[in-house]
Amino acid sequence: MQARREHRIDGEFRMHRGGVLRDPVIAYETWGQLDARASNAVLIVTGLSPSAHAASSAADQAPGWWEEMVGPGKPIDTRRFFVICVNSLGSCFGSTGPASPNPATGEAYRLDFPVLSLEDVARAAWQVVQALGIERLHATVGPSMGGMTALALEILHPGSSRGLLLISSAARAEPFAVALRSLQREIVRRDPDWQEGRYPVGEGPIGGMRLARKLGMITYRSAQEWRQRFGRERIAAEREPGNPFGIDFEVESYLEAHAVKFTGQFDPNCYLYLSRAMDLFDAADHGGSVAAGLSRVGAGRVTVIGVGSDFLFPLHQQRELAEALDDGRREVRFVELASVQGHDSFLVDMDRFRPAVERFFRPEPGAS
Amino acid sequence: MQARREHRIDGEFRMHRGGVLRDPVIAYETWGQLDARASNAVLIVTGLSPSAHAASSAADQAPGWWEEMVGPGKPIDTRRFFVICVNSLGSCFGSTGPASPNPATGEAYRLDFPVLSLEDVARAAWQVVQALGIERLHATVGPSMGGMTALALEILHPGSSRGLLLISSAARAEPFAVALRSLQREIVRRDPDWQEGRYPVGEGPIGGMRLARKLGMITYRSAQEWRQRFGRERIAAEREPGNPFGIDFEVESYLEAHAVKFTGQFDPNCYLYLSRAMDLFDAADHGGSVAAGLSRVGAGRVTVIGVGSDFLFPLHQQRELAEALDDGRREVRFVELASVQGHDSFLVDMDRFRPAVERFFRPEPGAS
Repeated sequence: MQARREHRIDGEFRMHRGGVLRDPVIAYETWGQLDARASNAVLIVTGLSPSAHAASSAADQAPGWWEEMVGPGKPIDTRRFFVICVNSLGSCFGSTGPASPNPATGEAYRLDFPVLSLEDVARAAWQVVQALGIERLHATVGPSMGGMTALALEILHPGSSRGLLLISSAARAEPFAVALRSLQREIVRRDPDWQEGRYPVGEGPIGGMRLARKLGMITYRSAQEWRQRFGRERIAAEREPGNPFGIDFEVESYLEAHAVKFTGQFDPNCYLYLSRAMDLFDAADHGGSVAAGLSRVGAGRVTVIGVGSDFLFPLHQQRELAEALDDGRREVRFVELASVQGHDSFLVDMDRFRPAVERFFRPEPGAS
Repeated sequence: MQARREHRIDGEFRMHRGGVLRDPVIAYETWGQLDARASNAVLIVTGLSPSAHAASSAADQAPGWWEEMVGPGKPIDTRRFFVICVNSLGSCFGSTGPASPNPATGEAYRLDFPVLSLEDVARAAWQVVQALGIERLHATVGPSMGGMTALALEILHPGSSRGLLLISSAARAEPFAVALRSLQREIVRRDPDWQEGRYPVGEGPIGGMRLARKLGMITYRSAQEWRQRFGRERIAAEREPGNPFGIDFEVESYLEAHAVKFTGQFDPNCYLYLSRAMDLFDAADHGGSVAAGLSRVGAGRVTVIGVGSDFLFPLHQQRELAEALDDGRREVRFVELASVQGHDSFLVDMDRFRPAVERFFRPEPGAS
């Protein structure tokens, strides 16, 4: 069964860096009930790769990508909140993106899709929220790229959320992260099967995507975790006999298994567009400096969570984000968690992340 | 002019993990004069990619890869020491490797080259030293992979050096480093031009090597350096007009320039063999534990240098190395330098590395 719904943005959707989409669609899922005053809505904007299926529901019982975080009695408690998760504009899980048909031609957009910005992702999500009859969100939750999208939303529509929960994110990418993503994109583009983006939808640069995903996995976790987890363990038997460069170590086997799982799920052009959108985003584009951009954020309560083992969105970036937002007009909390799983910790280290997210959503004393 | 000399190891050279090379050749260069007692020799074993040309000389005035470190009056002072630098067995700058002709067939070895171990690299270097009439080295200096080779030499021939200078190295690779190198190798191997190693020598997987080199550059430097150096600077003009995934940021342009420079210099199969040799090396293979392996080291004076921004050979590995070697039988110094250039610091942060290396070579008080 399908819990996914679609919102069509009728007419022209003007993109932040130029170009227009006609009648784009945003896929989303919801959990819980909107209260009479439409005041209990929580928007989740995602990292680069997830769909809108954050959690299971009666309509779709498959576990979601944040199953332990969203649901009845869970930190984002669907008995209290009406939770909305959107699939990003530019992605390929129901929302319009480079793999979707261009109404002008009937063919997939591919590289005719305009340059994607997280400002576009944010505005498209906001249209969904408004279409649901919500004028102000209780909170927006953004992990990783989603944190940048959440910032873009608050910068473009200040006060769209009362609260902001930014997890392992940043006001803009550092050159190290840009270099890593740029290389991932180049690996995909250099695969001859990419065909300058004109591969048949559903096929394409499988090999390049597999390699880019391995590099992704390396950047999403941490050396510390792998030291504890794999050490120098060898695989049980030589799985590629006769191949002098086959898999020897457990860590190689782990990467292989994950890369194979991912590939085929994600459209390569969509991946390229979203990855570049993350590099391009810069809060400083909105006012000339990061501080000026962030000063537009209207949310009154902000929590910024980060982990020290994250080297893609390093902890000092979350600290800087919290400091810049803490200009006396907001209640800002900075939370450093001791997770060892790097950037991905919010997906796997639930023992640490559950209480931190729970605290953000705890009813305020005296509030109804 | 050519300063490079070659030593032929006559007969069968038995490889550590099986297989035999016939009459392999090791390229090397020397600087300075061997004293009458043959007691002033310093051996430099290199990282993965350098040739034996560590420094310029009258015979070859091109600057060497460690030009600021080796020469008259420099930290490795060629007025005091007879300095030998070898090109690693398995490499492609004059030493026998996968790109060299297999005497049995007259064709390049390619993947018929036996599995390469740093123990082989060490033993081949030692044969050069002995052929020069040296029974004991004043010191062996090993940066990066060279540090592992230096350890292998001291484990296989305890006491071959009186001193050991290990720079940004380790007793064995961590899974994080293995993962990164494994991915680099896979990127090369997945390039169709690799042709399972059977590309014409001098050609081959240029694209794959360029991408692998970019990943190498990312792992050799640090996020901190790039933050200071590039920030979010864009390139002056769009250099790839019409390419929606072209170069935007200075950091991308920097990687591109470096990758282009490297590619074509290094034979892809040689790269694969040496890269894997670095993953396979483990001091624990010599006695069952790292401590047991390192206990064989005969050198009486050891200095271990590392930098905190190195995430390929992280600082805690150098600390562990120094602690394991400091078992009461040796004079061990551990030196942490505050360089920001990551693993490559020993090549570029000369203001910090020069004094540290100088100190290791300072004449001991009371010594002749």
